[in-house]
Amino acid sequence: MGPHDPACLFCKIVAGQVPASKVFETDFAVAFLDIDPVNLGHVLLVPKEHHATLADLPDDLAARLGSLVPRLARSVQAATGADGLNLIVNNGVVAGQTVHHSHWHLIPRFEEDAVRWPWPHVAYEGDGLAGMRDRIALGLQGG
Amino acid sequence: MGPHDPACLFCKIVAGQVPASKVFETDFAVAFLDIDPVNLGHVLLVPKEHHATLADLPDDLAARLGSLVPRLARSVQAATGADGLNLIVNNGVVAGQTVHHSHWHLIPRFEEDAVRWPWPHVAYEGDGLAGMRDRIALGLQGG
Repeated sequence: MGPHDPACLFCKIVAGQVPASKVFETDFAVAFLDIDPVNLGHVLLVPKEHHATLADLPDDLAARLGSLVPRLARSVQAATGADGLNLIVNNGVVAGQTVHHSHWHLIPRFEEDAVRWPWPHVAYEGDGLAGMRDRIALGLQGG
Repeated sequence: MGPHDPACLFCKIVAGQVPASKVFETDFAVAFLDIDPVNLGHVLLVPKEHHATLADLPDDLAARLGSLVPRLARSVQAATGADGLNLIVNNGVVAGQTVHHSHWHLIPRFEEDAVRWPWPHVAYEGDGLAGMRDRIALGLQGG
């Protein structure tokens, strides 16, 4: 078994120590209904191993989670009749993460729902765009 | 080459017909800076094939995109000094999708940024939770 935190709510759900409305389970992940949903049908896709954020996930585990997303999206939309869907992964308290075991939200969306997520915008100034590109690209070369 | 739409902005970026500040490129995907960023360092991860939404992505392509997310998240956070990060994929107009070629937003987040994304909540009533679980689980059995 991989990393595990006995105090973690999602580790407890993975272990069957806390109940959840599971919709899907594999050897590496479980998906269940969020009990405090943004919209009905809001699902959490959770790796069985405990990793705090996306940045901490092993690449192969991130790949396996990614492989489940298309069929989960189709099933959530079919079951709810949703017009659209958001996949959201919050990483860090400042980004809205509340359970520190990486989890992928699949949130069905409807024309008349209560969700309002405005996207404010900022602008690059001077050579800021090129400088940012170079810094991120350089970091990626390091793996 | 896989699916392609000559009228699609992101297909044009993939083909090099429209410039972009690329930070990473593989045989199946490209990542570049969003030119209208929510925060500086906002990156889009885009499959080279044209698929409208997550629900349309082949599982293996979704897996390969997923495999890139941890290192992209680390690089964006390192380059920006971010305190956190949101991964967001909007699917459908109602979910905020504006370019209909699936793209994965990596948005660095900061304590003092302007982003306010409140999560409204709804509640299951009666046996609604069990019914929803059953409908989604049944859909997943179909693949």
